[in-house]
Amino acid sequence: MRIVVLAGGVGGSKFLWGLAQEVGEKDLSAIVNTGDDIELHGLKICPDLDIVTYTLAGLVDTDKGWGFAGDTFQCMAVLEKYGQPVWFNLGDRDLATHIFRTQALRQGRRPTEVAEAIHRALGVGARILPMSDDPVATHVLLGNGPMHPLHFQEYLVQRGATDEIRGIEYRGSARARPTEEVLAALQEAEAIFLAPSNPVASIGPILAVPGIRECLWETQAPCVAISPVVGGRSLKGPTDRFLRWAKVEVSPLGVAGLYHSTLHGLDGIVIDVADAGDTSRIQALGIRVRVGEIVMHGPEEKRHVARMALKFLEEL
Amino acid sequence: MRIVVLAGGVGGSKFLWGLAQEVGEKDLSAIVNTGDDIELHGLKICPDLDIVTYTLAGLVDTDKGWGFAGDTFQCMAVLEKYGQPVWFNLGDRDLATHIFRTQALRQGRRPTEVAEAIHRALGVGARILPMSDDPVATHVLLGNGPMHPLHFQEYLVQRGATDEIRGIEYRGSARARPTEEVLAALQEAEAIFLAPSNPVASIGPILAVPGIRECLWETQAPCVAISPVVGGRSLKGPTDRFLRWAKVEVSPLGVAGLYHSTLHGLDGIVIDVADAGDTSRIQALGIRVRVGEIVMHGPEEKRHVARMALKFLEEL
Repeated sequence: MRIVVLAGGVGGSKFLWGLAQEVGEKDLSAIVNTGDDIELHGLKICPDLDIVTYTLAGLVDTDKGWGFAGDTFQCMAVLEKYGQPVWFNLGDRDLATHIFRTQALRQGRRPTEVAEAIHRALGVGARILPMSDDPVATHVLLGNGPMHPLHFQEYLVQRGATDEIRGIEYRGSARARPTEEVLAALQEAEAIFLAPSNPVASIGPILAVPGIRECLWETQAPCVAISPVVGGRSLKGPTDRFLRWAKVEVSPLGVAGLYHSTLHGLDGIVIDVADAGDTSRIQALGIRVRVGEIVMHGPEEKRHVARMALKFLEEL
Repeated sequence: MRIVVLAGGVGGSKFLWGLAQEVGEKDLSAIVNTGDDIELHGLKICPDLDIVTYTLAGLVDTDKGWGFAGDTFQCMAVLEKYGQPVWFNLGDRDLATHIFRTQALRQGRRPTEVAEAIHRALGVGARILPMSDDPVATHVLLGNGPMHPLHFQEYLVQRGATDEIRGIEYRGSARARPTEEVLAALQEAEAIFLAPSNPVASIGPILAVPGIRECLWETQAPCVAISPVVGGRSLKGPTDRFLRWAKVEVSPLGVAGLYHSTLHGLDGIVIDVADAGDTSRIQALGIRVRVGEIVMHGPEEKRHVARMALKFLEEL
């Protein structure tokens, strides 16, 4: 069965890892948010792509959720001496990815080709596809009075996502085109998952690329979300803050409703037992619900969520 | 006394370090070969500038003569996975220099300004000046029949300098201009040293920049070389091979004669006791000679060579 997963970073990568263990990597494709991409030190950094890649390669630092396990930070210490901004911590091994990617892009290779070269080199069998080869940059607007735009990474990492959000922009998304690889994956998909990633800041930029949403409107494949919200809180990161800005209830019901309206119909959602009380209200939207333990820490929990999602799919 | 040293990498940096201990850094300027510069992984590498900088900063790996002491090589290991050439080993801390420099150059800063930002950040008080802001690339020609050009670093590092040399090109040198900083340093110099570096591959590219040699022709400052050859062999690297190609005897006499003709007069040369037998023949060229122990391993030997060279200068 050809499975496509729309994914952000940490949450998406955990779910993908579990899926890869359960069904193998051969027919698994991830369409990954690139709205978080940022250039630092003259290097192109693609945080979500790298998290997904390192996770599927079994190389990720599972404690932090990003970067290579056991990485060192020697280079950053010297970059700091040179007066470079070091709020975005890049490990020495991780830097190889950014150096390789930056050079390959400057040589004219497409981001999709470069992403493939990287994940193949690290032994990943699944396809990891940037949502677009065109640049999209998610910005968060803050402040009272004049809006103060910050790149998503500045908001998340530099400021710790502490400010209330006044607006979101997916800069460049109106002109961005999905790649042939993304369109083909969606058209050939027999199942589509929306990973437990931030619906506004991670899945949102993917769905904002003209053509991707339309593919999801038209697909015959069942489309199932895994809730990124458990017990009224984000599983990871500031998802709750983004949902509140979008006037979406911070609950599986809110997330289900958002996807249902954006995608012109969501087939199902997997929610946590903590949110079992949402079940009937979600079902009232015409969305099937599977309730289970969806918090993923260790490998067994990741596989469990994947098995649950796959079983749910079979029953749809 | 304002001292200018023309220098390549390891030998030049050792001599400079000794001088800096003896006379301080304030009035010390190094004009450094950039013909060895190479772009790898999309990063601009300036081996001689970096060796001189790290050495004067007290950060160099004194065993190897290049790179940061205690550096690690995590990034290179991953770059190798990405199929990148890894024959030129770059440490994780060292990479910060190349990343910072590459970004600063892309932003339009001059190589001289970037070199200054780097050595100031690392606490070096001497001036470390690239010989030119224009690109020069030393190539070595090998082979029988058709000449096979190799970048100097490919010849030295990748092939271990094992091939016989059939030619040398300082590519770009005819169009290269000395910087205002280099010209000012030479015009204000009260003493000029030719460091114990490769006369053909390290000092040669500096002298090939139009305008630099002319400054040395016209200067009133005494010009003293420290022999890079001891007992018929290079102190470091393939200097002997380069001298043979240039049809220069691999001896202090040969080196003195080469500089004497190139500079329209060399005032003096410091040679090793092993070569004391060359003294009268060098003096016959009109060049003063100082004989002493010039092999530099530990810090005391470096200071000793500097003291000897400074005393020699006083007596000229």
